[in-house]
Amino acid sequence: MSAPDRIRASVVGATGYTGAELLRLLLGHPRVDVTFVGGHAKAGEPIARVLPSLRGILDGLVEAFDAGAVAARADVAFCALPHGASAPIVQALRERSVVTLDLSADFRLRDADAYRTWYGEHGAGALFGHAVYGLPELHREELRTADLVAVPGCYPTASTLAVAPLLASDLVSPDGIVIDAKSGVSGAGRSPSAGTHFTETSEGVRAYKIAGAHRHTPEIEQELSAIARRPVRVTFTPHLVPMSRGILATAYAHAKSDAVDAARCTEAARALYAGSPSVVVLEPGACPDTLWVRGSNRAHVAYSVDARTRLVVAQCTLDNLVKGAAGQAVQCMNLRFGRDEGEGLEGAAMFP
Amino acid sequence: MSAPDRIRASVVGATGYTGAELLRLLLGHPRVDVTFVGGHAKAGEPIARVLPSLRGILDGLVEAFDAGAVAARADVAFCALPHGASAPIVQALRERSVVTLDLSADFRLRDADAYRTWYGEHGAGALFGHAVYGLPELHREELRTADLVAVPGCYPTASTLAVAPLLASDLVSPDGIVIDAKSGVSGAGRSPSAGTHFTETSEGVRAYKIAGAHRHTPEIEQELSAIARRPVRVTFTPHLVPMSRGILATAYAHAKSDAVDAARCTEAARALYAGSPSVVVLEPGACPDTLWVRGSNRAHVAYSVDARTRLVVAQCTLDNLVKGAAGQAVQCMNLRFGRDEGEGLEGAAMFP
Amino acid sequence: MSAPDRIRASVVGATGYTGAELLRLLLGHPRVDVTFVGGHAKAGEPIARVLPSLRGILDGLVEAFDAGAVAARADVAFCALPHGASAPIVQALRERSVVTLDLSADFRLRDADAYRTWYGEHGAGALFGHAVYGLPELHREELRTADLVAVPGCYPTASTLAVAPLLASDLVSPDGIVIDAKSGVSGAGRSPSAGTHFTETSEGVRAYKIAGAHRHTPEIEQELSAIARRPVRVTFTPHLVPMSRGILATAYAHAKSDAVDAARCTEAARALYAGSPSVVVLEPGACPDTLWVRGSNRAHVAYSVDARTRLVVAQCTLDNLVKGAAGQAVQCMNLRFGRDEGEGLEGAAMFP
Amino acid sequence: MSAPDRIRASVVGATGYTGAELLRLLLGHPRVDVTFVGGHAKAGEPIARVLPSLRGILDGLVEAFDAGAVAARADVAFCALPHGASAPIVQALRERSVVTLDLSADFRLRDADAYRTWYGEHGAGALFGHAVYGLPELHREELRTADLVAVPGCYPTASTLAVAPLLASDLVSPDGIVIDAKSGVSGAGRSPSAGTHFTETSEGVRAYKIAGAHRHTPEIEQELSAIARRPVRVTFTPHLVPMSRGILATAYAHAKSDAVDAARCTEAARALYAGSPSVVVLEPGACPDTLWVRGSNRAHVAYSVDARTRLVVAQCTLDNLVKGAAGQAVQCMNLRFGRDEGEGLEGAAMFP
Repeated sequence: MSAPDRIRASVVGATGYTGAELLRLLLGHPRVDVTFVGGHAKAGEPIARVLPSLRGILDGLVEAFDAGAVAARADVAFCALPHGASAPIVQALRERSVVTLDLSADFRLRDADAYRTWYGEHGAGALFGHAVYGLPELHREELRTADLVAVPGCYPTASTLAVAPLLASDLVSPDGIVIDAKSGVSGAGRSPSAGTHFTETSEGVRAYKIAGAHRHTPEIEQELSAIARRPVRVTFTPHLVPMSRGILATAYAHAKSDAVDAARCTEAARALYAGSPSVVVLEPGACPDTLWVRGSNRAHVAYSVDARTRLVVAQCTLDNLVKGAAGQAVQCMNLRFGRDEGEGLEGAAMFP
Repeated sequence: MSAPDRIRASVVGATGYTGAELLRLLLGHPRVDVTFVGGHAKAGEPIARVLPSLRGILDGLVEAFDAGAVAARADVAFCALPHGASAPIVQALRERSVVTLDLSADFRLRDADAYRTWYGEHGAGALFGHAVYGLPELHREELRTADLVAVPGCYPTASTLAVAPLLASDLVSPDGIVIDAKSGVSGAGRSPSAGTHFTETSEGVRAYKIAGAHRHTPEIEQELSAIARRPVRVTFTPHLVPMSRGILATAYAHAKSDAVDAARCTEAARALYAGSPSVVVLEPGACPDTLWVRGSNRAHVAYSVDARTRLVVAQCTLDNLVKGAAGQAVQCMNLRFGRDEGEGLEGAAMFP
Repeated sequence: MSAPDRIRASVVGATGYTGAELLRLLLGHPRVDVTFVGGHAKAGEPIARVLPSLRGILDGLVEAFDAGAVAARADVAFCALPHGASAPIVQALRERSVVTLDLSADFRLRDADAYRTWYGEHGAGALFGHAVYGLPELHREELRTADLVAVPGCYPTASTLAVAPLLASDLVSPDGIVIDAKSGVSGAGRSPSAGTHFTETSEGVRAYKIAGAHRHTPEIEQELSAIARRPVRVTFTPHLVPMSRGILATAYAHAKSDAVDAARCTEAARALYAGSPSVVVLEPGACPDTLWVRGSNRAHVAYSVDARTRLVVAQCTLDNLVKGAAGQAVQCMNLRFGRDEGEGLEGAAMFP
Repeated sequence: MSAPDRIRASVVGATGYTGAELLRLLLGHPRVDVTFVGGHAKAGEPIARVLPSLRGILDGLVEAFDAGAVAARADVAFCALPHGASAPIVQALRERSVVTLDLSADFRLRDADAYRTWYGEHGAGALFGHAVYGLPELHREELRTADLVAVPGCYPTASTLAVAPLLASDLVSPDGIVIDAKSGVSGAGRSPSAGTHFTETSEGVRAYKIAGAHRHTPEIEQELSAIARRPVRVTFTPHLVPMSRGILATAYAHAKSDAVDAARCTEAARALYAGSPSVVVLEPGACPDTLWVRGSNRAHVAYSVDARTRLVVAQCTLDNLVKGAAGQAVQCMNLRFGRDEGEGLEGAAMFP
C-alpha cells in the first residue's frame, strides 16, 4: 500500500483529556485533517468552549456520534471512550470499514476469561480478540496492517517498556516482579471526583487499587508473558502523585546471575528498542524524570542493579496522555497508513 | 525580499529555560535549521545532558560563543542572555551582519536616561535605540525589516496587550492604571535561589519588587505612552504564583464614560488585534486561565467593566516562555524573513 | 461574667474544610471540649472516616443536626454551613439560647436590601441584623457580649485588615480602591467541581466573579465604610491560585498627599492593631508570603507606596481556613467566654 | 526520676526546616521553654527574619553555638545539623552533661564499619555506638534513660514502621524486601539546588540514589535485622514527589504462607504498636495518604496482600519533618524527661 497524501481523522470522545491531546497532536500532524470531533454530553457545543486550549485554533461544534458520518468523512477513527462504552461504537465503525484505534481497555486483552474476570461481559463479542495491541515497540509489523488497534494505556506502556528487555534477554526471573508506578492526576480523567479534587490531591501521595486490584494488571502480564514465553505474574501498585501529567514505573526484578549489571540491562534495551524512535534508553544507572518527557511522545528507560540484593531496578517515564495514550495512537496510525512512525510526534517535551 | 526556503538559526544562551524553549520551537519549525547552540558555563557538555528534554532529539555539544562561527553558520541569532551580558554579544553579531533577536532588556528602552536609571551604564552604546521593539501586534511593519529586535519579556507583553486597545480607542484614562500581574516561577530563570526553592515557592503566593520597583515598569510605560500619544504612568505589581509557566496580568483602568462597557472594550481589542494570529480576544466578561495557553504562542485577552466603580478590568494570559519570550522571538523572525507570522507557532496549548 | 473553666463546643457542618479546621483547633484548645460533631450527608459515619486526619484522635460518629441535643450538650455552636442553609439552623440554636458563631454569609450584612440584592430572601428574618460582625480587630468590645456572631470569610478579612488602617488614619481616598485578591483552592470548599479538579487548577491561575460580581464585595464595603465614616466602593477581583490554603489581598488606594509613605501607613496599622495578637504588621516595604501564615491564626499586613503614582499598595496574607474562617471563629469564642483572645490559637505556621 | 515541671530546651541548627519544625513544636509544648536558638550562617540575625513563620511569636536573635551557654541555659539540646557537623557539637554538649537529641545520622549506626563505609571517618569516636536509636515504638524503654539519642530520619522511620510488624510476627521472609519510598521535597533541606528548584521539581517525579546507593539503607537494615534477629537486606529506592511534606513508604515482602492475609498483618501491627500513640494502624486493605498526617506526629500504617503473588504490601505515611524528624525528637524528649510520650504532639494534621 502506498502512503496516502492526507489522512482524514475523526476523534470520538474528544472532550476529555485524551481527546484534547489527540486533537492537539492531530492538528499538528503534517498529513492529517481532522474531520469529525465527537462527544456525547457536550454535543452541540463549540469545541473551543469545551476545550479552551483550542480557542482560535479549531472552530466548529462537538458532534454526537454517528457511525455513518464518521465513515463518510474519515479514514480513521480514534475512540477515546470509557471501557464498555467503546465496544459498540468500535463495532459500528468496523462494520463501516473505518480503521479504528481504540484507546479503551475493551480490545486489549486476548483472553476472554480474563476480560470477564476483570471487566465483565464484553459489548462486542465478535470482535473480541481481533485487535492488534497498539504498542509499536513490540507489535510494529502487525500494526502496519491492523484495522482495529487496541491502544494500551499509560501504566501498561510504562511497565512493559521497562521490563520487556530484561525478559527478552533472559536477564531476570519472570517470578516476583514488582512494579511500583507513580502517575499524575490526568490519568484519572476529566470528571471531577473527591479523589481528584485539588485540595485532596495537592501535597499528598497515595497508592490505590493495590495488591493486584488494578485492571491494568492482566494487560501487563499478557504482554510480559508473551515476551517471556511463559506466564508472568506481577505485583502492580499504582500511586497518585500531585502533578498533572507523567508516569514513572519503577520495576524490581530478580537478576538471573551476578553477571547481570546495569550495562547489560541497558544493552538489552538498546537492542530491543533499536529502530524505535519513541524510546530513549538512558545511560546505565540514570534516573529519568517525568518532567523530561512531558508533552512528548518519548519514553525514557533506564536500568540499575542493586549488587547487594541482585535486584534489577528498571525505570520508565512517559507522558501518560501522549506516549501513554494519544501519541501512541497516532504512532499506530502512522504505521497503519504507511507513514514514518514518528511523523507529527517529533516535538520535544515542554521543559519546564 | 523573497522568503528564504530555509533559515539557519543560532541560539546564544541556550541552556536556560528561554533557550530550551527556543530550541523546542525552532526544532519544530518547518523552515528552520538549528546550526549553533551556545552556552557559557556549560560549553563542551552534550546539549542533551544539559537539557534532558532533548534526549534523542538533538545531538551535539553546547558551544562557547564565537561571533565568527555564528556569522558563518547562521542567518539569525537568538540571544537569551541576562541584561548587561547581552549587549556586547549583540554588538559583535551585528558587526558581522547577523540578524539578531535579543531577548534581554538591553535594547528595549528607547530613552537612554531611563535605561541608566533602571539598569545602569549600557554596554553597547552605539546600538542603543536602534532596535525595533519585538511586539508584532504593535510593531509588525517595522519588524519586517528589522536587523536588531528587542524582544519584550513576559510582563510587558501581557500588560501591554491587555491595556493597549483601551488606550488606542480612548476608552480609559491614561492616569491611574494599576497592573497586578501573577507569574509562574520559570520567569525567574534556571538558577536556583532561596526564592525559587520548591519548598518556599509551592503552596505560597507573594508579591515582589512592588510599588514601582520592577524594571519592567518603564518598558510597559514606553509602549503604552506610544499608544496613548501622551505619557502614561502605571503602578505595576508582580506576584509569584506556585506554577511553572504562565502569566496573568489583571489591569485596572478608569473608564472615560458610562458608555464604556465590556462589549466596547472587546470590540476595541478585536479591532486592534485583527490580523494578529497570536492574540485571541475572548467574549466580554470572560476570565482567561493561564492553563489554556501553556506551551502555546497565544495570548488570551478579555474585558470586564465594574459598573459600580467604572473601572475597566482588562486581563491577558500567556505562557511567559512562549508568547512572553521564545515564541515571540520566533514570531519576529518569521516576520523578518518573510514567512507567515505564525509559522511553526500554531501548536495548541498543552491541556492539562 | 467570670470565664468558665471549660467550654463545651459543638460544630454543625463539621465535614467540610472549615469544619475540619474547627475540629483541629478546638481539639487543641486547652479549655474546650468538643461535644457534638454534626453533618448532614455524612450523618452516621465515623468522624475519622470522613476526616481521616482525625484517625486516632477523635472517635465517634457524625450526628445529624438536632438543636435540642446541641443545646443540652454545648455552650457554643459553630455553624460551618452554606449561606441560606445556615439561617434556620442558627435560628433554632438561638431560640435555645446557644451562643452561636455562624461562619456563613447569612448574618454578615446589616443592610437588608443589600442582602436581598446579593443573596435573595433571608431565611431567618427576625435575627437579621442582630449579629455582631466577627472581626475582633474592629469589633472586639461588642464581641465580648455577642450571642450571635457573623464570622467573616477569608476575602473580607484579608481585604479589610489591609485597608482599614489607611482609612482610619485618613491616609488614602475612599474612592477608587482596587483589591486584587489571590486565594488558594480550599476556599472553594470540599465538593468536587470542574473548577477545582486538580488537573484544571494545578499549573494555572485565573480570576473569577470579577468586576463587582463577587458576593463578598458588599461585606468589604460595609466594614470599610464604617471605618471611613462615609460610603466606600471597592473594585474587588478574586483569583484562584494553585495552592490549597492562603489568601493574599493586594489593595491599591490613592494617597491623600505626598507625605503618605510606607512608614506612615505602617504606623497607622501598628496603631490600629496594637493589642491584636492575630495581626502582625511587617516593616515598611515588606512583601508577606501566604506560606508564612499557613495553618496559623495570624494575618500579616505590609505597606508600600509607589511614589511615582502616589498609590499605596497594602497587602494582607492569612490562611483562609484559619484567620479567614475557623481560627477567627475560635478567637470570637474566646472573647465571648472571657478567655484570652488568642488562647489555643498561638500555634506557629507550618513552614514549609 | 520525677518529671520536671518545666523543660528548658535548646535548638542547635534552628534555621533549616527541621529546626523550624522543632521550634514550632517546642513553642507549642505545654512544659517546654525554648532558651537557646542556634544557627551558624545566620547567627546574629533576628529569628523571625530567618523564619518568618515565627513573626510575632518568637523574638530574639539566632545565636552562634556555644556549648557552655547551652549547658547553662538548657536541660536538653536538639541538634538539627548535617551529618559530620553534628558529631563534635554533640560531643561538646555531652561533655557538659546536656541531654542531647541528635537528628543527624552521626550516631544512628551501631556498626563502626558500616558507618565508615557509608559516611567516612566519624568525628566523635568515643561516643560512637553509645546513643539510643530514637524510634520510640521499638526502643521505648531504653529512651527513658538515654542521655544521647540518635533520632532517625524520615525514610528509616517510615520503612521500619511499615515492615517491623511483619518480621516481628514472622509473617514474611526477611529476604527480598523491596522498599519504594516517595518523599516530599522538604526532606532535601533548605539549601537551594538545581534538584529542588521549583521549576525542575514541580510537575515531575523521579527516583534518586537508587539500587542501594542511599545512606539510609544501612539504618533500615540495622533496625529490621534487630527485629528479625537475623541479617536483613533491603532494596531501598527513594523518589522525589512534587509536594513539600510527607513520605509514603510502599514495602513489598514475601509472605511466608498462604495464611498470611491483610487481616493477620494488621493484627501484627496492632500488637506491636499497642501503646504507641503516634502510630495509627488502618484497616486491612487501606491506602493511607500523606495528606492525612501532614503537620502531625502520627504515622499511618496499612497492609494488603496480593493473593496472586503472595506479596505483602505494607505502607506507612508520615510527615517527614514531624514524625520523621522534629516530632519524633520531641517524643523522645518526653520519654527521657518522664512526660507522657505524646505530650505537645497531639495536634491533628492540617487537612487539607
